[in-house]
Amino acid sequence: MRDLSPSAVIKPEVRGLTAYTLKHFDADVKLDQNENPYELPAEIKQEVVDRVLRRPWGRYPEFVPAAVIKTLAQFTEWPGDGILVGNGSNELIQACLTVTLGPGRQLVVPQPTFTLYKLMATTLQAIVTPVFLDAQNFTFDVDKLIESARGADVVVVCTPNNPTGTLLEREALISILKNAKGLVVVDEAYHEFSGQTALPLLAQHRNLVVLRTFSKAMSMAGLRFGYMLAHPEIAREVHKSKLPYNVNIFTLAAAEIVVEKHLLLERGIQALTQERERLFDQLQKRQAVSVYPSKANFLLMRTPKPARELFEALYNRGVLVRDVSAYALLDRCVRVSIGTPEQNDRFLAALDSVLEMK
Amino acid sequence: MRDLSPSAVIKPEVRGLTAYTLKHFDADVKLDQNENPYELPAEIKQEVVDRVLRRPWGRYPEFVPAAVIKTLAQFTEWPGDGILVGNGSNELIQACLTVTLGPGRQLVVPQPTFTLYKLMATTLQAIVTPVFLDAQNFTFDVDKLIESARGADVVVVCTPNNPTGTLLEREALISILKNAKGLVVVDEAYHEFSGQTALPLLAQHRNLVVLRTFSKAMSMAGLRFGYMLAHPEIAREVHKSKLPYNVNIFTLAAAEIVVEKHLLLERGIQALTQERERLFDQLQKRQAVSVYPSKANFLLMRTPKPARELFEALYNRGVLVRDVSAYALLDRCVRVSIGTPEQNDRFLAALDSVLEMK
Repeated sequence: MRDLSPSAVIKPEVRGLTAYTLKHFDADVKLDQNENPYELPAEIKQEVVDRVLRRPWGRYPEFVPAAVIKTLAQFTEWPGDGILVGNGSNELIQACLTVTLGPGRQLVVPQPTFTLYKLMATTLQAIVTPVFLDAQNFTFDVDKLIESARGADVVVVCTPNNPTGTLLEREALISILKNAKGLVVVDEAYHEFSGQTALPLLAQHRNLVVLRTFSKAMSMAGLRFGYMLAHPEIAREVHKSKLPYNVNIFTLAAAEIVVEKHLLLERGIQALTQERERLFDQLQKRQAVSVYPSKANFLLMRTPKPARELFEALYNRGVLVRDVSAYALLDRCVRVSIGTPEQNDRFLAALDSVLEMK
Repeated sequence: MRDLSPSAVIKPEVRGLTAYTLKHFDADVKLDQNENPYELPAEIKQEVVDRVLRRPWGRYPEFVPAAVIKTLAQFTEWPGDGILVGNGSNELIQACLTVTLGPGRQLVVPQPTFTLYKLMATTLQAIVTPVFLDAQNFTFDVDKLIESARGADVVVVCTPNNPTGTLLEREALISILKNAKGLVVVDEAYHEFSGQTALPLLAQHRNLVVLRTFSKAMSMAGLRFGYMLAHPEIAREVHKSKLPYNVNIFTLAAAEIVVEKHLLLERGIQALTQERERLFDQLQKRQAVSVYPSKANFLLMRTPKPARELFEALYNRGVLVRDVSAYALLDRCVRVSIGTPEQNDRFLAALDSVLEMK
């Protein structure tokens, strides 16, 4: 490379990026990653392990993981050739954007939202057009989304939205779908907590892509699994940017068994949804706190304290939340995942102790 | 999307691509994917499972998998901040290319070689410049590689090369590194069978990226693990295109334990290397067969028969090989992975039976 600095070979758009990172903290009460505090039932875990021990580890997974796709097709009532599975839904977001974006191509994305969409689009040298949420209540600016969608190659909407918990109503989504020039990717990472899904719209809207993850409600964040639902013609194209053998034999087995036994997870999901409402009510009672309605397994809240200070004071009391104050519009905001009732009580007690301090 | 066909939103470079696919065949003797026929020792597998069952599955993996990176740093004697881990080395190839390639940027790649480099670069709308191997003996055209590297953003060399088994000599690699304008990515998927690695060159050549996989010698194809070694400044940039939490807790545990106990795998690797030489000698004795020297765990061979015909005749005898005749220069060629002595004998018997047929 002669006299060049190593980074001179990297695209300038990439060099200008700050990487997505998360500092590691240990805490008794971990409410920072929107994980499901209820572990998978032991019977599921044992069945996964038994199945994996029966299979050779030195052999590649199937090129097309037919069994899990069949299971997902039955579960979603969507044809298997319109389903792709990924190493977390992140991989499928990346594949969707890679086959559609490049220099001169445009991504429209609400802000604030999950960071990765913009990062990936920037790496692909695409134009990223933000559509800001309402600064008061964080609802989507539907008119502006529709207008922007007319000229965009891709619109990505996370609903319920991370980190605000906001839901995009079905009628609004339909309007976006009808007016969009390109793909409309709906990231349903938190849909199980919202009672709403875009799945029934797939048959009518060939530009709709629905992404789902097993990292939240399905309690498989450590295993990495997600899937994509789309028109088979779209799936075929996105598949070209998906890595072969992207999901390993362990995760494939786990995903299949978890879908088959998903009723075993229902009670935990219901408990979390109820706890979200309880925590919301509790937070509303606190004068110093503004809390926002959420349809996900987390709540966004604002206090008079700088978020960094609140984060640290809570952390010193054994409670880990996410400081999201660096996001647009979210000054002094933290995001708290819904935990078990005991964890949520510990969070409330710690919060009260912090807010009463002078 | 109004009247548009779904694929109209896909980049034309992607629409024009034929996806990387592999049809699934079952066979007694599976010699088509360069897998290690020797499974990991049962004690390793049990330790992986025990460790995973002690850890919550509902929690994300660490953001930076510190333990496995530390283990790899000790194993390679390369600093941990110059190491990235991936969901197979494929993911790291993709990340390397994504941060360096785009329209107007150029990848130089020997042909024939592993298909994925060209596919990924095309998806990124980059210019792909092939440098053909010698048509007689499949050695690298070093002069042309050096010349092409002067203007390229990335050169990718798989050594030993898949599917030919050819090794790029160290002196040739050094010349390429010295003359390259950009990154030189050396894919060492098969290095354990060759006795050669570019690792010692890393300290002197800041444009060198070394990729390794656990899918071949390390007998973990089903688990998906690979790693990248590079100057920390390069690693930091490539990291930006790597997905967060890309390797799951099961594979992280397995990779760590396999590196710690890699001496347990040595005997199998030696056996495969010896079997490769035995099979080479055996094939050389057959007049109808041209076999090429290989430093990997497979052999490339040409017969008078159309490759498809040979493939099917072998398959009908329970032996699965890879038809590679669609690659440039490889008319009538098949690739056969090195199996156990018994598997290799079954392959030879099947081959003799096929070639004796009229």
